[in-house]
Amino acid sequence: MNDRPLILITNDDGIYAKGLKELTEVMRLFGDVVVIAPEAAMSGMSNAITTGKPLRASKIEEEDGYILYKCSGTPVDCVKMGFNQLLERKPDFVVSGINHGTNSSISVVYSGTMGAAIEGCLHGVSSIGFSLCDYDPDADFTRAKMWVARIFQSVAEYGLPHFTCLNVNIPKGEVRGIEVCRQTSGKWVEEMEKRTDPHQRDYYWLSGYFKNFEPDVPGTDMHALENQHVSVVPVTVDMTCNKTLEQMKNWRF
Amino acid sequence: MNDRPLILITNDDGIYAKGLKELTEVMRLFGDVVVIAPEAAMSGMSNAITTGKPLRASKIEEEDGYILYKCSGTPVDCVKMGFNQLLERKPDFVVSGINHGTNSSISVVYSGTMGAAIEGCLHGVSSIGFSLCDYDPDADFTRAKMWVARIFQSVAEYGLPHFTCLNVNIPKGEVRGIEVCRQTSGKWVEEMEKRTDPHQRDYYWLSGYFKNFEPDVPGTDMHALENQHVSVVPVTVDMTCNKTLEQMKNWRF
Repeated sequence: MNDRPLILITNDDGIYAKGLKELTEVMRLFGDVVVIAPEAAMSGMSNAITTGKPLRASKIEEEDGYILYKCSGTPVDCVKMGFNQLLERKPDFVVSGINHGTNSSISVVYSGTMGAAIEGCLHGVSSIGFSLCDYDPDADFTRAKMWVARIFQSVAEYGLPHFTCLNVNIPKGEVRGIEVCRQTSGKWVEEMEKRTDPHQRDYYWLSGYFKNFEPDVPGTDMHALENQHVSVVPVTVDMTCNKTLEQMKNWRF
Repeated sequence: MNDRPLILITNDDGIYAKGLKELTEVMRLFGDVVVIAPEAAMSGMSNAITTGKPLRASKIEEEDGYILYKCSGTPVDCVKMGFNQLLERKPDFVVSGINHGTNSSISVVYSGTMGAAIEGCLHGVSSIGFSLCDYDPDADFTRAKMWVARIFQSVAEYGLPHFTCLNVNIPKGEVRGIEVCRQTSGKWVEEMEKRTDPHQRDYYWLSGYFKNFEPDVPGTDMHALENQHVSVVPVTVDMTCNKTLEQMKNWRF
């Protein structure tokens, strides 16, 4: 019997993204790999699931220790398909990415890459979302892959607590080290660009820029990245704000 | 000048859902209302945003103190459209729902209703997601509406901290009171049903049942609901797991 770890890989940039191929290459060093990736680009899909229509999945490639499926759904759907239908046994790790572009700060909330990692840890499996801070579809992942390998090996060694996954962002260019840190407080602003189509009807493109509410604050993921460190944020699925919970106990409804 | 509060309403069941009409009716008691709702059902869309294609929005109805728009996007897109394009001024509240079905426990992570509330609080506005624990499209919202009004009034009085919104679930049937509580630890299991289409190709329906990892634990939202209380969970956008962050400081990468 095969005793190599089984690693489920997905992403949100879709089956043809370079980042997915690069991540697969790294993970094959460490275990048997099943990739289940969205057939379409699923950036910004967060933890979305497909409920109103059924899902499809097809095997695209298979060789020793490696299977590739495409799936019609979201990144979270891909993980659910893996656990419930496509994998022969429960995987030992769920790894998502490598995303083309950052998922630091509040982007964790919108990210399909992180949606998949969150879903993995909900299934009781150590899960990591990896992103490279470079939106270029042809980005150079050479340096990033070394850090992916290093962080993956640490997770394999130490394990992660239940219902906690990692949000790992890798800076573009030189990397000085790894920093375990917290999610920066920030948001996306001025996000819509209005245009008029040839039929004089309005349409809107989502766009905008990121506003950091705590610039230059050590211990935040943005600060780590700005100082050319890989940011590693442990992410919980428990969204309760305990501080507010205590305050609200005094409310008279 | 009109000094009534401006309330932005959206949902994830779409523009024709009964719960949206019922919520609108309640909110018009308290302020001017702009409804921007998805034209299609968007259950399970989480914090998803539309990035690969543009958005459309059209005004459907307008009367004194009330405007209704449909939008081609997700619940979060609807909120962004409101803040960035459709509203004449920043709203005082963002209210989402009333969802047909529960969003307690881990469902907060997948819920489009809660995605919209989270987006609202990211814009610095007191935001609430309301759900009724009844999936019937023709559910009776009569009792629920009284609790919606009561909780909304408390939020208007006390305010909510920045980047915190409320996840409010209302039990079906009798209601004994309101309980401020935390998100129950739980997950959805056995979620895929495999079928074969008339062309002998497989497809999969997402389904399954909820598993409560801490049944009968007081202080959790599931416990509150099982005891016929309205559950009110304050939800944070900061997903950092601080406990794990401390532990990971000892990791040697």
